[in-house]
Amino acid sequence: MLRIRGAAHSTRADTVAAEEPLEIRLGGSPLAVTMRTPGDDFDLVHGFLATEAVIRSAEDVAGLRYCNSVDEDGRNTYNVVDVDLAPGVRAPDTALDRNFYTSSSCGVCGKASIDAIRTRTSFDVAADPVRVPLEVLLALPDRLRAAQQVFDRTGGLHGAGLFTADGSLVALREDVGRHNAVDKVIGDAVRAGRLPLAGHVLMLSGRSSFELTQKAAMAGIPVLAAVSAPSSLAVELAREVGITLVGFLRGDGCNVYSCPERLVLPED
Amino acid sequence: MLRIRGAAHSTRADTVAAEEPLEIRLGGSPLAVTMRTPGDDFDLVHGFLATEAVIRSAEDVAGLRYCNSVDEDGRNTYNVVDVDLAPGVRAPDTALDRNFYTSSSCGVCGKASIDAIRTRTSFDVAADPVRVPLEVLLALPDRLRAAQQVFDRTGGLHGAGLFTADGSLVALREDVGRHNAVDKVIGDAVRAGRLPLAGHVLMLSGRSSFELTQKAAMAGIPVLAAVSAPSSLAVELAREVGITLVGFLRGDGCNVYSCPERLVLPED
Repeated sequence: MLRIRGAAHSTRADTVAAEEPLEIRLGGSPLAVTMRTPGDDFDLVHGFLATEAVIRSAEDVAGLRYCNSVDEDGRNTYNVVDVDLAPGVRAPDTALDRNFYTSSSCGVCGKASIDAIRTRTSFDVAADPVRVPLEVLLALPDRLRAAQQVFDRTGGLHGAGLFTADGSLVALREDVGRHNAVDKVIGDAVRAGRLPLAGHVLMLSGRSSFELTQKAAMAGIPVLAAVSAPSSLAVELAREVGITLVGFLRGDGCNVYSCPERLVLPED
Repeated sequence: MLRIRGAAHSTRADTVAAEEPLEIRLGGSPLAVTMRTPGDDFDLVHGFLATEAVIRSAEDVAGLRYCNSVDEDGRNTYNVVDVDLAPGVRAPDTALDRNFYTSSSCGVCGKASIDAIRTRTSFDVAADPVRVPLEVLLALPDRLRAAQQVFDRTGGLHGAGLFTADGSLVALREDVGRHNAVDKVIGDAVRAGRLPLAGHVLMLSGRSSFELTQKAAMAGIPVLAAVSAPSSLAVELAREVGITLVGFLRGDGCNVYSCPERLVLPED
């Protein structure tokens, strides 16, 4: 990770929040996939089933366990939990997929999720030669905020802004859901026949997740910048497909998690 | 909305971010439901379909329009968009539901989503007599942050903390997804046989959405507090089921959007 704070630049290891898919099965049948931080998985499964009205108490679960879902090295991914409902508890007849990609990928692990994106992306983002001056990048959060008129009134909307490499705003959308804000910005470009969005920067008011990085990749966007932190799987996907992933973009600094060569740093 | 800033209290109207379900159909068949801020819906649909690899360009869409989805007053909700794919473009065979409740409700509007929750909730949250002193509430963000050890390292995790009405921490969970953090906290209680969580406060590091308020309702939690803003549908659901919804809880103030009678304000 390239860390930039004013005139000081340094490369260092960084801790990012872990993100991996979790598939929840009922009696062996896939019910839902959610991107989560590993840990407390049985709590997550109980809470998900209770808040989706599948169970009412712990007694409605006869048992649960990690399945033998293995990665390409044969290790258990601990990303699949199978639940046996107690007798008389009905499984819902609707699929609850939270994420299309991961649920349709062959394995359930971050690597498989990334592979699924790679095979579906039709644009070669890695080959995009665009370079973005650091001062342009540092100015984007203020430009995004200035364009988010609604933000000042409600404080409740995520913003996604599409910029050119010289910092001109192409499109801005806001939404209660950050994935929706990104879908709206990209959809605007799709309707205008402007995909792939080579040479562009997508700026987010919040954090970068796997799903948002996936959307940038699918639209051919070479630079994804966010005010807050990225997840581990966002970083991995960005490195795999060749997206420049910038996090903690605020004040006079930022962290660059992948492809830092697209940044033009001021001559010291 | 009850606005509290230090010793000053006032009741005023407030603008919150609009949130409504959008159902996307392909040739009349439901494909996905997402909770979104109304506006730029055709952009949202194009962006969603492109980033989910259903379409590659605008030419893959032969047409799209709002369906005649009407609310109980017979007005078009503008919450259902039907897409005709161009000849040769294949519809995915997986359902892409982002939200179980809304997709399974009979109508597609905020009101129907709320009704679906009401019929599924087994706990009478509105009857919960708990009262929470303002000073306890104001101390929760710092307590949540202090408990979020991981937060300081990555800055990328959402936190959800369950507290008693006197401010004692019962459980804390963190996750890249805020719905997962809440599911983990509730799941922990489900496994311990502690539902309904009467008399408790659920504190969130981020914003309150419809989905998170729904989870609080399903777990019987009477007070939901968040550092940031709620959405319109979160406020409506909280009022409907009788949850005290607190937003912008920071420093010496907060906004109370529903059931303010549970707050014990200091005698002036």
